[in-house]
This record gives sequence, structure tokens and C-alpha cells, in this order.
Amino acid sequence: MAKPRHLDEFERIARFFVPLAGRGALDLKDDVALIDGPGGTEYVLSTDAIVEGVHFFSTDPPEQIAQKLLRVNLSDLAAKGAKPVGYLLTVALTKAGDETFLKKFSAGLALDQKRFGIVLLGGDTVRSKGAAVLSLAALGKVAAGAALLRGTARVGDTLFMSGTLGDAALGLKVLKGELPRMAVRHRAYLVSRYRLPQPRLELGRKLVGIASAAMDISDGLVADLGHLCAASGVGAIVETARLPLSLAARAALARDRTLLATILGGGDDYEILFTAPPSQRRRLARLRVTEIGRIAAAPDVTLLDGDGKPIALARGGYRHF
Amino acid sequence: MAKPRHLDEFERIARFFVPLAGRGALDLKDDVALIDGPGGTEYVLSTDAIVEGVHFFSTDPPEQIAQKLLRVNLSDLAAKGAKPVGYLLTVALTKAGDETFLKKFSAGLALDQKRFGIVLLGGDTVRSKGAAVLSLAALGKVAAGAALLRGTARVGDTLFMSGTLGDAALGLKVLKGELPRMAVRHRAYLVSRYRLPQPRLELGRKLVGIASAAMDISDGLVADLGHLCAASGVGAIVETARLPLSLAARAALARDRTLLATILGGGDDYEILFTAPPSQRRRLARLRVTEIGRIAAAPDVTLLDGDGKPIALARGGYRHF
Repeated sequence: MAKPRHLDEFERIARFFVPLAGRGALDLKDDVALIDGPGGTEYVLSTDAIVEGVHFFSTDPPEQIAQKLLRVNLSDLAAKGAKPVGYLLTVALTKAGDETFLKKFSAGLALDQKRFGIVLLGGDTVRSKGAAVLSLAALGKVAAGAALLRGTARVGDTLFMSGTLGDAALGLKVLKGELPRMAVRHRAYLVSRYRLPQPRLELGRKLVGIASAAMDISDGLVADLGHLCAASGVGAIVETARLPLSLAARAALARDRTLLATILGGGDDYEILFTAPPSQRRRLARLRVTEIGRIAAAPDVTLLDGDGKPIALARGGYRHF
Repeated sequence: MAKPRHLDEFERIARFFVPLAGRGALDLKDDVALIDGPGGTEYVLSTDAIVEGVHFFSTDPPEQIAQKLLRVNLSDLAAKGAKPVGYLLTVALTKAGDETFLKKFSAGLALDQKRFGIVLLGGDTVRSKGAAVLSLAALGKVAAGAALLRGTARVGDTLFMSGTLGDAALGLKVLKGELPRMAVRHRAYLVSRYRLPQPRLELGRKLVGIASAAMDISDGLVADLGHLCAASGVGAIVETARLPLSLAARAALARDRTLLATILGGGDDYEILFTAPPSQRRRLARLRVTEIGRIAAAPDVTLLDGDGKPIALARGGYRHF
């Protein structure tokens, strides 16, 4: 087979970094690593970086940049059922003396530290060139062996998700001026969902002992469900009519049905996607989660419309078979 | 007191980040954080970032960029007496498809993983704009309560360091073409010391139970000893005639005495600076370390010349009182 000219992110990780991975790295396939903790616990480690001009803009409120950086990592901890412990922070700013930015940035961290019960453990501040790069590594704790992994879904499991789908991707469209005719309150809601994800920490901890597999939705439902299925060696069927949508997303979809592709494929929701055996349905009824499909033997992710017919996502839209 | 217009790195950390620091963060004053580990151990966490055009250049060999990034963190673990466990890596490259760089970069990591007994645990790869930013968080392990800290030096302790001083700063001068008349072998040696620090992991672990305080020399002897003294509430006297110098550094100094300022003030040596009570002198005689001075009550760092007279470092040189 001819060597491809350019590898995508997953291929580059597989080729260059997986050979370096040690015990606890979960083959770099699970967003997190696990290391032994004290007294029958494990630490869950997550790290994510954001870049100015790529993941955030210099005009974004610094408080929210800080909160998003922390929360995307907390979302990884949440999806593993872990309780936050602490974090390391690397701040590479282009203007070394940008005290106004740092004042607001640290205020955002202070707010979320209190809200989510996590503290700063250490870090590094350096001067960048070109664009600011912010990197955060979060540590959470879980009972040893209890972390929810993505490679453990089984055929016959039911598929669930928390919250609502697609709001963040629609919020990004609002910011780009692509949804100008929506109600102001809907636009504000969608933008807030894009800017400030809600890590589902409480839910994640309740899912320990219930869920068979879990991960957070950061790259979009279709992509992330694909990752979960690939890691578990299974397929999945999603009933799109059951997908939990916010009022704002419903309003957007009512105006323009092609936005379903954005909702199914867009990222940044940071909700928990998880599977559970049917025997857990009663316990799950008490939690605020939505059943959206099931795990199947076929290796693919199949999306069904309201009539049970398969639909396929195409670039920039969707089409029926 | 009037508010200064721009805060330096330490002031910015003190103002914006120390208020966020939790238990184990050591008030962000010790290069590392400590968290509980399994079975009577503690994890030592260190994080450092390097930026293209600031800490390395795009023309540097990628293997050595990787090794330096890993080793500066390993040096922090070494100075705390910790044994390496694993690391998280964030790679923000400007060219997403730069496979040649990644191939060599990961080969450098593979070499040093084997050499120093550490494995990759996880990470994130993102696209940067402007300059590449590489960030690494290393975890080491030490017996609970045994980590060597920088705030625990006592008056009367003897001051020691490992290896030789100033080679890396002189190596940087060689790379800048500022030492053209030195022998090729000396220049090559100094450059190798700049490019590839040697984390003193074995020595660090032997110092547990012997040293009263320790840190690595990354910002230069004078600055780092100042940090150690400030954290410990003590002063120090350094006998510059006893400083361990390599053959190459001696050769450079023989040509140009003003290079003493580079040797005393230059960074990137990554040797261990530590203190120990006089009662430990016999045990230390078996280790490859050099006694360079002592801890005193006066709050300052005093440098003595060969005649016991104080000398002072000025910007770009040094002068006698």
C-alpha cells in the first residue's frame, strides 16, 4: 500500500506516539490515562491544549477562555466517572506583560475552581511567538478499576447521552453570523453553550457501576460514537428522532433541515455519550439522560430517521439512501 | 507603593496564580507539585514548555528538541529525589502534516524513555499559529514526605552542586558565534551541554535523607540560589574559586575573565544545587558532588573570589567591591 502523503491526527498519533505509550496510557485511545492512586484509587489524567486563532480568538473574554480550557478537561474526567483533584497549567502568551489578560484569565479559573472543586497544582508561563497556546493537564480520582472506558461497549447495550446535542456547533454558526434570523434569546443560548461547556461531573460519577462504556462528545456525535465503536469492536444504531435537542436547536432545525448535519456532526458539546446493558434501564430512568439508540454487531454507525430508514451524512449536508 | 507597569514572571505568578494554588502546589514556589501516591508514596509533578524561536529553533535537530523538553522536566524530578514514572505531552505544531519532524521528535523521545525509564501516558496534538509550542508534564514517585524541597535549607548547612557550572550558557555563546577562537572539541562539548542536559536522577535519589534542600539549576546559579535562599529564609556564601568547571569552561575563562559572569549567571545547566548539614559530609564524599559554599543568616547571596573578597555580578560582567 502506498504511504499516504499526509497523516490525519489519529494516524499521526498511531504512528509516532502509540509506540511510546506505557501502562496506563490505554494505547492513547481514551482521552485519558490511568495511574495508581492512594488507598484503592486511580488517578485519571487528561490534557488538552487550545490555540489562539484556532480554538479561541483574542477578542474572546479571557475569563471564558480560561473556563473553556478547564472545562474541556473536566469533561474528560466526567466521562470517566472521576472526581476532580487538581490541574497543571501552561500559559504561552505572545505579550509577556499582558496583565489585563492574565487578571481576567485567572479570575475565570478562580470561579470554576470553586464551582467544580479543583485546584491549581503547578504550571509554567512562557513567552510565545505568533499565537498564544494554553495547555492544561487535569487530574481526577476514581475507585481503582471503576473508570468508565470507551472500549468496553457490548452488543445489545443501550446508547444514551446527557444534555442536548448540537447546541455548541450551532452557537459557532451564530458567532460566524450564519444564523441571523433566529430569536436573540436562542442565539444567546447557543453561543453560551459553545463558549461555556458544562462538564457533567455529577452524572459521570453516578454512571460508575451502571455504564458499560463512556466518553465525552467533543468531536461530534457521529465521530465520537465511531471512536467508541472502533475501540469496542462494535457498531451502533442511532435513532435521530430521539436525539435530545434544545428549544433553540429545534427552532434552528425548523427553519433549515440541513442543520441536522451540523447537529449530528458538529463538535464541542461536551456531553457524555455512554452505553449500558438493558438491565440498568431502571436505574438510568432516575438520571437526566436520553436513550438515543443501541449497540449492534455491525461495525458501522447507522443513523435512522423518524421512519426507521438509514440516513447518511455527507459533507455539508445529509442525504437519504 | 506605586503599582509597577509590568510584572516579571515571578510577580505575575504571585499575583495571578498563587491565589489559585491548592494543597500540594507548594505555593508554586518549588518547580513541582506533590500529590498522594499509592502505598506510602507521593507523586512529584513537573511541567515545562518550550517555544520555537525562544527556547529552540526550527533548525535544531528534532530528536534533541524532544530530548531537551523531556530532560528539563526529568531534571526537576531528579532535584526532588523522585523516580520517573510517566509524562503527558502537548504538541502544537504550525504545520499539521509535519511528519518528518514528528518522526525524528518521537525517535528522540523513544531513546530517552529507555535511557531514563519513563513512558508516555497521554497528550494532545493541536495546530499552532506562528510558532510551535511543546509542553510536557512529568510524573515521578518518591516516598511520602521524602521529596527534597527548596524551602528547607538551614543556616550552617553546606552548599553543594553536581556536575560542572556554566557549560550550557557558554554553549549558547558558541552557537551564537561568540567564542570563535576556542578549540573545536571544547566548542562541541559546550554545545552538547546546552542541547542535551543530563538529568541527575541517580544522584537525586541518593540525596534523599542526606540533603536538607535541593533544586535544579535552570535559571543560573545566582538566580536559583537566590530562589532557594528566599524560600528558606536564609542567605548563602559561594566561594567562586571552588566552583566545578569543565576543561572547556576553564579554557574559555582563561581567554576571557569576564565570562565568569556567564558562568555564574547563565542558565540551562540542569545540575542539582543542594544543601546538607555538616554531619552528612562523610556520606557526600562518596558522591560526585562539589562543595561550593555554605548557608548563612544574611538574606543575600554573597559571591567570594579566591582571596575571600566579595564580588558582585553586574549586567554583562562582574566587578569587585
